[in-house]
Amino acid sequence: MQALIERIRAEGMHLGGGILKVDSIINHQLDPKLLSAIGVAFAERFADVPIDRILTAEISGICPAIVTGIELNVPVVYARKKKPITMAGPVFLETAPSHTKGGETMLLVSAEFLRAGENILIIDDFLASGQTMLALARIVVSAGAKLAGVGAVVEKTFEGGRAAVLEKYDVPIQALARITAMRGDVITILDE
Amino acid sequence: MQALIERIRAEGMHLGGGILKVDSIINHQLDPKLLSAIGVAFAERFADVPIDRILTAEISGICPAIVTGIELNVPVVYARKKKPITMAGPVFLETAPSHTKGGETMLLVSAEFLRAGENILIIDDFLASGQTMLALARIVVSAGAKLAGVGAVVEKTFEGGRAAVLEKYDVPIQALARITAMRGDVITILDE
Repeated sequence: MQALIERIRAEGMHLGGGILKVDSIINHQLDPKLLSAIGVAFAERFADVPIDRILTAEISGICPAIVTGIELNVPVVYARKKKPITMAGPVFLETAPSHTKGGETMLLVSAEFLRAGENILIIDDFLASGQTMLALARIVVSAGAKLAGVGAVVEKTFEGGRAAVLEKYDVPIQALARITAMRGDVITILDE
Repeated sequence: MQALIERIRAEGMHLGGGILKVDSIINHQLDPKLLSAIGVAFAERFADVPIDRILTAEISGICPAIVTGIELNVPVVYARKKKPITMAGPVFLETAPSHTKGGETMLLVSAEFLRAGENILIIDDFLASGQTMLALARIVVSAGAKLAGVGAVVEKTFEGGRAAVLEKYDVPIQALARITAMRGDVITILDE
């Protein structure tokens, strides 16, 4: 998605240690036009895939998932990282190592919001090591649903997440911007 | 907003202690049609108010804020509750007591994403005691920006938040569903 790629080139910052700051585009401030276009881009790329529901993880996955859900007209569920007191009843629980926060992050989804037999598209802001995507995929499997595809706004190809997901699931993976290297101030992104 | 009111009547649950569960509508699962309609409703209700930017708080404020930002074509910023490692540089920091989690919640906004002189609309999922809205409003003021209005998806009129905001700020306040009482299983919502 060239508009996104250009924005990351202009505003993205490599903070070192493989951490990309895209707060002005994805993680803190959202541009309505670019965000809408992200939803359209995901909907186009998964147009041939049957999708009943989108699953994402709070916090930064919510925005791209919502605009995609609106485009595809399917409900969106976001995994919570803490159990709110309104989350009563059984939950699916998985953990994933947190890249930006350290430690393990919990991912919680109320059992009532994932149904056996449904086709689930996972959307998140980043595909890096793939551990969050795989944790979400395990929740899909636990629910008896079917993983239909995986979409990331930004992929860091050098962290191996695509291969890690494909090793377990034969599904289409779409990334709207693919970063192949970050060295010092230089962020290398594949053109479309 | 009658469609929202009907959904809360059908699916909302009073968990006791003034806690309303609307996980199936707002806080965990999102319905794309209803969410889009929430954006349209806020855009209509604030049509006569100059708005340069929307400010909300993670997590549950993000979805209604995003769809409103898309309708009004203005950027959306969400206050973080923890400092991510990508949040470098100066921040505006306020705290608010958490209704559903207990304790104090931090609200952090990078100084780079709020500008002096801008007109800021605050959107959140709930207007209850008004403490989160007031903390966000203090951030607006700290930035030298102007509070233009306050919008809540759901207002609990009996917790006094509207009066608490109006006591400090002479701005329009819009709520799409106004709950006047919750007693046992009975949730009383004003019709439009």
